[in-house]
Amino acid sequence: MENTSSTVRLGIIGMGNMGSAHAKNIQEGKVPGLELAAVADRDAERLDKYEGVEQFSEGIDLIQSGKVDAVLIATPHYDHTILGIAALEAGLHTLVEKPISVHKADCERLIAAHTNKDLVFCAMFNQRTDPSYQKLRQLIQGGELGAIQRVNWIITDWYRTENYYRSGGWRATWGGEGGGVLLNQCPHNLDLLQWLFGMPSKITANCQFGRFHGIEVEDAVTALLEYPSGATGVFITTTGEAPGTNRLEVAADHGKVVIENGSFKYTRTEQLVPEHLESCPKGFEKPAVWNVEIPISGGNGEQHVGIMKNFANAILKGEELLAPAAEGIHSVELANAMLYSGFEKTPVEMPLDGASYEKLLKEKIATSTYVKPEVVKADVADLEGTY
Amino acid sequence: MENTSSTVRLGIIGMGNMGSAHAKNIQEGKVPGLELAAVADRDAERLDKYEGVEQFSEGIDLIQSGKVDAVLIATPHYDHTILGIAALEAGLHTLVEKPISVHKADCERLIAAHTNKDLVFCAMFNQRTDPSYQKLRQLIQGGELGAIQRVNWIITDWYRTENYYRSGGWRATWGGEGGGVLLNQCPHNLDLLQWLFGMPSKITANCQFGRFHGIEVEDAVTALLEYPSGATGVFITTTGEAPGTNRLEVAADHGKVVIENGSFKYTRTEQLVPEHLESCPKGFEKPAVWNVEIPISGGNGEQHVGIMKNFANAILKGEELLAPAAEGIHSVELANAMLYSGFEKTPVEMPLDGASYEKLLKEKIATSTYVKPEVVKADVADLEGTY
Repeated sequence: MENTSSTVRLGIIGMGNMGSAHAKNIQEGKVPGLELAAVADRDAERLDKYEGVEQFSEGIDLIQSGKVDAVLIATPHYDHTILGIAALEAGLHTLVEKPISVHKADCERLIAAHTNKDLVFCAMFNQRTDPSYQKLRQLIQGGELGAIQRVNWIITDWYRTENYYRSGGWRATWGGEGGGVLLNQCPHNLDLLQWLFGMPSKITANCQFGRFHGIEVEDAVTALLEYPSGATGVFITTTGEAPGTNRLEVAADHGKVVIENGSFKYTRTEQLVPEHLESCPKGFEKPAVWNVEIPISGGNGEQHVGIMKNFANAILKGEELLAPAAEGIHSVELANAMLYSGFEKTPVEMPLDGASYEKLLKEKIATSTYVKPEVVKADVADLEGTY
Repeated sequence: MENTSSTVRLGIIGMGNMGSAHAKNIQEGKVPGLELAAVADRDAERLDKYEGVEQFSEGIDLIQSGKVDAVLIATPHYDHTILGIAALEAGLHTLVEKPISVHKADCERLIAAHTNKDLVFCAMFNQRTDPSYQKLRQLIQGGELGAIQRVNWIITDWYRTENYYRSGGWRATWGGEGGGVLLNQCPHNLDLLQWLFGMPSKITANCQFGRFHGIEVEDAVTALLEYPSGATGVFITTTGEAPGTNRLEVAADHGKVVIENGSFKYTRTEQLVPEHLESCPKGFEKPAVWNVEIPISGGNGEQHVGIMKNFANAILKGEELLAPAAEGIHSVELANAMLYSGFEKTPVEMPLDGASYEKLLKEKIATSTYVKPEVVKADVADLEGTY
């Protein structure tokens, strides 16, 4: 499908941290093909600075205004589903922030609304633009690494202070956000995990709720993953640790890859491990290796701008999407399964039963006795990093 | 207790890989105070090279010979208990290879036999001599790191080929060895884990039996640990991965320590994390850090020789033991709990019920249908590394 016009009139719904950062990128001309045509937020103060741009209090009014060809939904999580469905039904191209929905059943509802395949439906998985993860995916998909045997991702550098959680009443509540670090910070990492290695068949997780912060949702998680192939994985995250770690280690039949601190290290076995293991006459000898350092250029990639460019080009030129929204169900399912395992203190077989999880989540919301401390109205953060 | 003689007459029982390596160190004069007075092995060929040293086919005969003041027990695992009890009851100082026994109940039996406290009773936890782990312990015990919040040990460089497992009929069987990587290779790491961080209150493990090798016991394990303080841990090991990893990461209230490849990196937060978390007015800001590289001299330490020197000095001069055998129960309990969790696919509350585990293990032995492939008689390995 090709658009005949040369620019896409974009409306952004939700002008908090993320929505305003996206608007800034567009207004600075970083995304050819996208024009900021409208913004919506229930907090009128947040709209003040968008002079000359159509303004709405309600996202649904923006969607139905006829003033935009496409929307970017950057509201609190639950509204991603509601507004995403409304936008698709209104015939708008839709870019939805992560997570695409709070739980698997909502993901299915949202994805089902994408009946008109002429509409581009994309998710903000900006970390897919990171050249390190792209390189790893290339090595895996090209067969270079051989079968994956073990994955270990320590992603504990999502540090957030107590004041972060006090900056919005919706934050870190079951009713407002539907989860903590797994739903807010980790969708990127969980998306990359499934993008790189596929989905596990079983998840056992320890979730700690309000361990480091005065919140009711999870802020520390350790999950043990089992894959259909027999491969194993560990995923560890928290918002309570400093300096924290972001280290992805992958053991495969052709050796080991470690991505950390911008470096990509591949320790390549000359012989495939299973072959050496079977044939080596000695008991303690290891296969010979090469220490390979793969230069990664382009820093962390284009990130949000890259996804928005791709979104625009998909609309205008039919370019293939790097992050189709339909794939966003996987990271949500992973997060849900970890929470389910953590709540019920039992391993969870995949695929997760979405209806059971939705029921459990609704119980958490209904029975919540959590009272948020006074909300501190924070300035919209200047997000230099990638979130 | 002080010995009036200037040398200790030592008998070594079990002249396989480890026993012969210990004998070599002693005969080369690396352990002042220890004299190799006797050796025992059921395989007569293994005794040939010890001319001028008393030789026995049975360990029990060595123990009762009156020719030695002390024994070093380096037999297959199950005999550690039987021979250890016999040696202590015969009034001999006793140094037992790891694991001190195969299961917790046997550990209790062995430790109970140490009634005469004039006898030095030590375990071969040679990795306690490693300056990196000693430094970490010092930082923890001295309070420098503050409370420990998270531990991650990836110890997957215990690579062993198929021929390693074929080199002895007892190897990697429930009846002969009582376990795989957890009982043979990991006692060191499990001992350090408890020496550094204490015992967890709960363990959930995925154990894979014969995943990489044609064996009936575990050769790949991922364990999730929960500590009484709320701290979490992950312990990952296998003998089927190359090049493998040995990386210990510790997150604490004063930052992070990583020990890997001989380096000791401490990223120290200037402010204690919990204080910063509570007081920082910004949402996304992290505490300032120092990047501290702590030089570690002395390589991996004196390892086996260090433990033997300490054993001799404890006998001759009353020196304090670095690795009292009684502490060996903890690493066995950790290994047992991981296996129990892996077998039963359920979390295990600590302390482990030793009687239940012994019963389970005996069932595994009784119901084993495993037939070992032909045993390849391997040369005794030249153990350059530390095992």
